[in-house]
Amino acid sequence: MAGANIHGYDFGKSQVALSPVSLQELREIEATLGWSDEDARVLARHRDIFEKHAEEMVDTWRAVIGSQPHLAKWFFAPDGKPDEAYKAGVKKRFVQWVRDVASRPHDPAWLDYQEEIGLRHTPVKKNKTEGTLTPDVVPLRFLIAFVPVVTMSTRTFFAAVPDNERRQLEDAWAKAVQLHVTLWARAYAKDGLW
Amino acid sequence: MAGANIHGYDFGKSQVALSPVSLQELREIEATLGWSDEDARVLARHRDIFEKHAEEMVDTWRAVIGSQPHLAKWFFAPDGKPDEAYKAGVKKRFVQWVRDVASRPHDPAWLDYQEEIGLRHTPVKKNKTEGTLTPDVVPLRFLIAFVPVVTMSTRTFFAAVPDNERRQLEDAWAKAVQLHVTLWARAYAKDGLW
Repeated sequence: MAGANIHGYDFGKSQVALSPVSLQELREIEATLGWSDEDARVLARHRDIFEKHAEEMVDTWRAVIGSQPHLAKWFFAPDGKPDEAYKAGVKKRFVQWVRDVASRPHDPAWLDYQEEIGLRHTPVKKNKTEGTLTPDVVPLRFLIAFVPVVTMSTRTFFAAVPDNERRQLEDAWAKAVQLHVTLWARAYAKDGLW
Repeated sequence: MAGANIHGYDFGKSQVALSPVSLQELREIEATLGWSDEDARVLARHRDIFEKHAEEMVDTWRAVIGSQPHLAKWFFAPDGKPDEAYKAGVKKRFVQWVRDVASRPHDPAWLDYQEEIGLRHTPVKKNKTEGTLTPDVVPLRFLIAFVPVVTMSTRTFFAAVPDNERRQLEDAWAKAVQLHVTLWARAYAKDGLW
């Protein structure tokens, strides 16, 4: 099973949060994004790229995070230094997330795990998986604002995709990332406003 | 002055909300997005495109909204029909927003107006400008999820931009839109989580 040996990668497990988002609401969000079956298919057709380069992609983003103190600080222990146990634990799941984006269907188990990921960025569940003492939130503004880095930096890994499909793949990836952040944002919103 | 005759376009006016976001925090968000002075410059170099086509762009997005009941309903009066006064009022400011994205510097007045726009999508200020009775929120999920439509549909208006600058313009526009949504999201977030 994908990610079976990753600590805290609880996809499909009973301890994962239950998403309050219905499949009907998910389909509405997908429609809002312009997400279509063809987007899912183009990601699946090129899943090898994500399988092979997932860790490199995460390393690219982590380098950006590490270079910006306002992004790096959410990974720090109370002593003001990077919490390496936290960083290493999160990284494995972040790499698996890349692979999942390219291959997982948007079904109830997937929806529940997005709820779980959102909560793990907020005081409800941050630090719980690793038992660490980093700050108890990654502020929503950085989650939303980091999307262009995640989408634009990834193009370099799509260089070998034929011209007539590369843009389609870039767009599908961009829509998929925005969809995930949309779902993660639920954990941050005031009641009734998400 | 730009937009001087638009009802409720209160950019720079004393009745606008004061943003609690500092310029330092704004620069952090910009850095997170990969936003640079060059992004501002490429938008400014092509501001004529936005000036000329702003209304067409909004019409494009409005057509998408109108075709999806879960998006259209936030513009409805209590009788379940589109509130034309609300739609018309909002549209003028939406068109002006497009022009502003391409030309306004990211200064304190701009920051305050983004706070105001965010609030006008939530129960704090929605309907106040037009004195209407549409639902009192545009849910955050639709605000975030609509970004790819706004960024990708706009490419058609960039067709005449030289090859070596078109992608740069598309990216600057995408980053700018994401920045605005990031700031608008503040009004939706629980205390301390934005």
